[in-house]
Amino acid sequence: MSNAVVLLSGGLDSTTILAVARQRFTVHALSVRYGQRHGGEIDSARRIAAAFGVASHVVTNIDLRTFGGSALTADMAVPKDRDASAMASSIPVTYVPARNTIFLSFALAFAEVLSAQDIFIGVNALDYSGYPDCRPEYIAAFERMSNLATRGGVEGTNPIHIRAPLIAMTKAEIIRLGTSLGVDYAMTTSCYDPASDGRACGRCDACQLRRKGFADAGVPDPTPYA
Amino acid sequence: MSNAVVLLSGGLDSTTILAVARQRFTVHALSVRYGQRHGGEIDSARRIAAAFGVASHVVTNIDLRTFGGSALTADMAVPKDRDASAMASSIPVTYVPARNTIFLSFALAFAEVLSAQDIFIGVNALDYSGYPDCRPEYIAAFERMSNLATRGGVEGTNPIHIRAPLIAMTKAEIIRLGTSLGVDYAMTTSCYDPASDGRACGRCDACQLRRKGFADAGVPDPTPYA
Repeated sequence: MSNAVVLLSGGLDSTTILAVARQRFTVHALSVRYGQRHGGEIDSARRIAAAFGVASHVVTNIDLRTFGGSALTADMAVPKDRDASAMASSIPVTYVPARNTIFLSFALAFAEVLSAQDIFIGVNALDYSGYPDCRPEYIAAFERMSNLATRGGVEGTNPIHIRAPLIAMTKAEIIRLGTSLGVDYAMTTSCYDPASDGRACGRCDACQLRRKGFADAGVPDPTPYA
Repeated sequence: MSNAVVLLSGGLDSTTILAVARQRFTVHALSVRYGQRHGGEIDSARRIAAAFGVASHVVTNIDLRTFGGSALTADMAVPKDRDASAMASSIPVTYVPARNTIFLSFALAFAEVLSAQDIFIGVNALDYSGYPDCRPEYIAAFERMSNLATRGGVEGTNPIHIRAPLIAMTKAEIIRLGTSLGVDYAMTTSCYDPASDGRACGRCDACQLRRKGFADAGVPDPTPYA
């Protein structure tokens, strides 16, 4: 099997794409500690990478707090108890400027070193309609740029494919897919603002989308909520 | 004047674009400490940013040594005394995988937070013909991707322009341009493999291109060589 890079945040979506990717590829997981306010995601990513037996797992550090501009990296309140229409209507303050572009750029460096042609990212256009860098046209533009940026892309020996298999799926469909592939979602972390004991708040956008996803999928939600 | 982000490595090219950008923009400089083997570039960048009186200067840390794959970040020898045809014929081992893509991604995050529409990068297609991410088609693809990645790009309120004013210039032309704008090239650092006292080796590709540039421009080379 050929190598693939999987961006693994430790959340529900990226864990599902790891399960998808390992069916066809030798998986190298990449997690980015980017100045998010809690480290629980990275702990989850390490446990998930170990449980899946990936070929390698790189955790790299960057500091997006340098730039601020997001409730996830700056000193801003995480919105709670928003209804679905509020979530869908605008780009939320939890959007981190250029985050997926930065993550994919690191994945591109890793892929180039591994001679991997495939990069998996768990973006989702339906549940996160307000995030510009979660849309198919963005993913296609990043892929095109990648093949002009790299030695193997330019020479044609190692074309890069950005794979976003969840992009058009609902959260419930993602949960059903992962469950069919044996994902243990109790290992995953979604909450933007967990309690000090690590339990999910249950009220931020990420928690609300996750809870609704399990309910819609008819799958028991294993998440411990505060 | 509106804000612009200038990627400032502390080298000859990026210092020249800083001088170009400040004619029309309020400049915010961004330097990336990326695991390069020597820190002299960042020291130069700090001095240059201060000398030019930029509005802000962010130095951010990433670790490209995690991935290796380049003589600039891994334990590989820096090539010396190569002739011009050898330099031009292939992508050298000093190429850092996806480096410009990663740098531009950070600049994009900074630009988005600043509501800046202009990002300056000192890439040059002539002297570095072997680097895929120094060519106009790459820059155009990154710009297109950027405008699908960001809030202001998608909404049309803050379109991003990636400015690479040196891309078609020879090193001699760059030096003449910078000299006309008052750049003190003694402050800049180009060498891939400086001596322990900070003096340039004079023999790596970067030193050779720099020396030849000053000679061709008819400008005295202020660089202290070992």
